[in-house]
Amino acid sequence: MNRTKMKTSRLEAFSDGVLAIIITIMVLELKVPHAVEFAALKPVLPVLLSYVLSFIYLGIYWNNHHHLFQATEEVSGGILWANLHLLFWLSLFPFTTAWMGENQLAPIPTAVYGFALLMAAIAYYVLQRTIIAKEGRESLLAQAIGKDWKGKLSPLLYLAAIPLAFVSPWIAGGLYVLAALLWLIPDPRIEKEIKKRED
Amino acid sequence: MNRTKMKTSRLEAFSDGVLAIIITIMVLELKVPHAVEFAALKPVLPVLLSYVLSFIYLGIYWNNHHHLFQATEEVSGGILWANLHLLFWLSLFPFTTAWMGENQLAPIPTAVYGFALLMAAIAYYVLQRTIIAKEGRESLLAQAIGKDWKGKLSPLLYLAAIPLAFVSPWIAGGLYVLAALLWLIPDPRIEKEIKKRED
Amino acid sequence: MNRTKMKTSRLEAFSDGVLAIIITIMVLELKVPHAVEFAALKPVLPVLLSYVLSFIYLGIYWNNHHHLFQATEEVSGGILWANLHLLFWLSLFPFTTAWMGENQLAPIPTAVYGFALLMAAIAYYVLQRTIIAKEGRESLLAQAIGKDWKGKLSPLLYLAAIPLAFVSPWIAGGLYVLAALLWLIPDPRIEKEIKKRED
Amino acid sequence: MNRTKMKTSRLEAFSDGVLAIIITIMVLELKVPHAVEFAALKPVLPVLLSYVLSFIYLGIYWNNHHHLFQATEEVSGGILWANLHLLFWLSLFPFTTAWMGENQLAPIPTAVYGFALLMAAIAYYVLQRTIIAKEGRESLLAQAIGKDWKGKLSPLLYLAAIPLAFVSPWIAGGLYVLAALLWLIPDPRIEKEIKKRED
Repeated sequence: MNRTKMKTSRLEAFSDGVLAIIITIMVLELKVPHAVEFAALKPVLPVLLSYVLSFIYLGIYWNNHHHLFQATEEVSGGILWANLHLLFWLSLFPFTTAWMGENQLAPIPTAVYGFALLMAAIAYYVLQRTIIAKEGRESLLAQAIGKDWKGKLSPLLYLAAIPLAFVSPWIAGGLYVLAALLWLIPDPRIEKEIKKRED
Repeated sequence: MNRTKMKTSRLEAFSDGVLAIIITIMVLELKVPHAVEFAALKPVLPVLLSYVLSFIYLGIYWNNHHHLFQATEEVSGGILWANLHLLFWLSLFPFTTAWMGENQLAPIPTAVYGFALLMAAIAYYVLQRTIIAKEGRESLLAQAIGKDWKGKLSPLLYLAAIPLAFVSPWIAGGLYVLAALLWLIPDPRIEKEIKKRED
Repeated sequence: MNRTKMKTSRLEAFSDGVLAIIITIMVLELKVPHAVEFAALKPVLPVLLSYVLSFIYLGIYWNNHHHLFQATEEVSGGILWANLHLLFWLSLFPFTTAWMGENQLAPIPTAVYGFALLMAAIAYYVLQRTIIAKEGRESLLAQAIGKDWKGKLSPLLYLAAIPLAFVSPWIAGGLYVLAALLWLIPDPRIEKEIKKRED
Repeated sequence: MNRTKMKTSRLEAFSDGVLAIIITIMVLELKVPHAVEFAALKPVLPVLLSYVLSFIYLGIYWNNHHHLFQATEEVSGGILWANLHLLFWLSLFPFTTAWMGENQLAPIPTAVYGFALLMAAIAYYVLQRTIIAKEGRESLLAQAIGKDWKGKLSPLLYLAAIPLAFVSPWIAGGLYVLAALLWLIPDPRIEKEIKKRED
């Protein structure tokens, strides 16, 4: 039992490490300007804005990841690889963020940014399913997740945003912001279910 | 209870990770010179000095953050986001440090450096308030913080330094050093309060 | 006893940190293109593919490392240095990955990539032997490892791939993928042995 | 008591994080060559060799740091800042390593490399003294450290190497290797003292 808990905590610690690094190295893409005028900050601004958006997304993933594993009892090989799969797509965020930001939301970089969001959302969904498959349908997690409308709606938003980036990147960008706002409020479902069981 | 403590420790671990990375990647802005004379170190020197200042600031934040969460019992969604908000402003330090250092305290980069300090100070204040709001006015933390004159004085110093950077960047720089010195001595208030309660 | 366990956990935490950083800084080698056409992603693609391969390898090492230390009771100076030796070779992965990826599997970079894989595999083997030498032949670990055919086969594959890279880099690349597939499925040996002992 | 231990572990975790990052970002200074000949690795070789040396030094510091805090009961503000002071000098290693390596042991970079080693050694000594001052002369740590001839000899070696770098950088380099070899064997003093007390 104790052995098992150590496993969960090490997976969490590793994921925390990777997420902390991803969230921080994005800032390396904010290239220090050579000039010292305010105008020198102008090309930095769109990079900064996409940095803010990706920072919020990574914060959301960290938050949800934390809730997910709080409700997980045991880590299997499948869970471990599903988790690495999620981290892989998240690790591409600094690249897609910088490409979109440095080109003021040009259509293709904006679509590629959405593609990385979509793949991360799918990877998160797969991770959740892998854990539920192991924990059982009657588990704390399964009941806490429930219908999971947020988890189903947000990939649809990204899927819509990818072609729309070619119509207008601003619509795509707006959908990315909208999906982030959906998640920004931490999920009360799992916390509720935990409280219910404790009573 | 145990579940709650795990949460606090994971938030601390994640914050430690981000702070450790921020403090370390700043050194990547110390560009390795191609020449091998002592003179080659001359352009590196102001970058090194601003690195020292930011290193001390991040050390102060880590230290205070550590004391803050030592006195915190539970992590809520609000605390989690207030903490990410603080980390966001701190993550801009490598950028502002390098810009100020590479331009020998030119007015605008020096003012922007102060702006990041100011926003981080405000974010820290918001985090403190969010925790006290949850823990209650009678809590260990609320009483330990007390009047918090340091927390109120230092943003005023940054606020003064920003316009003064356009008069003389050295005055602004002096104020940043002064505010750091205020904080350098670790806060005995919380430790005292802990001791008092234990007796 | 408690003191000893702390040691093991600190070695794990440090290794997790290093592995998390290695796995993440590789993405910094994905150079953000200046153009905004799909064609701009073309030179990025081979770098991305070698990133995927190295990401999987580092995931495998993290996974195996985790299993290895789960079955380890005590950390000695020898184990500590054998572990650092392993981390050294793994730390070269971002370099070899980028060199191979940026040159579309040119023979020499592909051979050098295999050399780093080989040295890491040898370092892992040495680490395993160092732990078994301390824990004893009757230990949980020694019995769980058993014949360790994977650990013996994969260095042979790398050894074959290095000269074959000069015949055809694609054969070498294929062998690297094959060896990864061998390991991708987490090792049930140790988990089985743990279960057997617990019964 | 429990509160105190948490403090120690958080300081260790933060230090581990910083050390893990320093040790890993050094590899970013291994610039990926554009050519694909073996000759392309030639300028990388001295950087790699100085990387190996610094990797070993950081491994030694991590190892000693680990032993030091294993014997430490409580963390004070003074210890915290003495620790950050040590981390500051260690954080300069990637810079000094790259400068020395990229210039094939030119005199000034080689002397500057030694200066960073010297300052880190002094910072480690100060940290040790700060801990002993708090723990008392009768403490586990004070007795374990004893005469500490290694801790006193190695700064002398660095001090000698700095001027000698201008006579012959190879002598200086040899002294750096020699001092590393002194420390490479983990210190049995503290482990012995722990065992003695336990009996």
